[in-house]
Amino acid sequence: MPGLFIVLEGIEASGKTTQLGMLAEWLERRAIPCIVAREPGGTAVGEAVREVLLHGEHVDSRAELLLYLAARAQLVAETVRPALEAGRVVLTDRYELSTFAYQGGGRGLPEPAVRTLNAFATAGLRPDLTIVLSLPRSIAQARLAERGAGPDRVEREGREFHDRVASAYETLGNTEPGVEIMDGALAAAQVHGAVVRLLQLRFPETFARGTG
Amino acid sequence: MPGLFIVLEGIEASGKTTQLGMLAEWLERRAIPCIVAREPGGTAVGEAVREVLLHGEHVDSRAELLLYLAARAQLVAETVRPALEAGRVVLTDRYELSTFAYQGGGRGLPEPAVRTLNAFATAGLRPDLTIVLSLPRSIAQARLAERGAGPDRVEREGREFHDRVASAYETLGNTEPGVEIMDGALAAAQVHGAVVRLLQLRFPETFARGTG
Repeated sequence: MPGLFIVLEGIEASGKTTQLGMLAEWLERRAIPCIVAREPGGTAVGEAVREVLLHGEHVDSRAELLLYLAARAQLVAETVRPALEAGRVVLTDRYELSTFAYQGGGRGLPEPAVRTLNAFATAGLRPDLTIVLSLPRSIAQARLAERGAGPDRVEREGREFHDRVASAYETLGNTEPGVEIMDGALAAAQVHGAVVRLLQLRFPETFARGTG
Repeated sequence: MPGLFIVLEGIEASGKTTQLGMLAEWLERRAIPCIVAREPGGTAVGEAVREVLLHGEHVDSRAELLLYLAARAQLVAETVRPALEAGRVVLTDRYELSTFAYQGGGRGLPEPAVRTLNAFATAGLRPDLTIVLSLPRSIAQARLAERGAGPDRVEREGREFHDRVASAYETLGNTEPGVEIMDGALAAAQVHGAVVRLLQLRFPETFARGTG
């Protein structure tokens, strides 16, 4: 497809939203057409699913996976695919790696099933690049405490769950094709610089028009 | 599992809800412990999904399938399986046959994928008996017009969609193991009598305690 599909990944408080904002602004200044979407929201269906997932109680693991995938299917069909076909850069906050890490690693659902279901939901659409912002759990917890917002349903999960997720991200970052790991503990401006340099290196036709 | 899982199926206005009510009352009079659930609702997660599905707009076919399956996964985990393990009769308004008929037959999603995803959502739980209330589309339409309620998102689909669903129910009724077809055009009391006789014949230990 003519566009480029770039995903930011990582555990809570790893800096995904900040980096997406900085990157979107960088693209805007260079008049590179882009859209930004977040999972599981981003569409009317997705926002409803997000509401159930983050604020509902007692969601069964299989139901949780299917809800995330429903939101993703809608986002891909309604937003991501049309934007890519129109030649835009699509930036998303989370995509399939989150599913592999949280539902596979965290919840322990069987990985082959998780991958099969994800491939169905996305009709096989994979990102051109996934950047994982890697961050030690202790720093993530300090950042979350600073934010002061009440934890949502997923954040309230126990320490072992989040350790499994973090460890799954590490494994996926080292084994999954098309994934790059970056140090999310650095200052936001440093991470942003590294993200831009990576994009210019990997996709010069799209990103090397101006200097960072 | 010690309980019995009985599903009523068929197109809109085929009489599922009426028959479920009559059957639940019949069981109650005989002190046979049962629960009744409807799809896609029946749980907090399911009711939220139902809201999106029946009143949302522009739901992608894959997202629609995943939402129905999420509601089913939650219903099975939270309600159906515990009730069966406690030895109850579980009656549901729709289950997997609806998915095969509407998302497979109606939407044209590939049948093997639909079956794989459904098996994941239900963790392989299949009904002990599925009764399809068969009804010509013309009678169904007349019944819907009599009800006078505004059509929901699925009912507003075109004639061809509903013809494909009806035809899929017919095929499934004749080929799927554990499925019985009944004439839904008969009077409610006659259908009820036939349902009770079928249950007494198939599961005498549970249903033959009293006469219909």
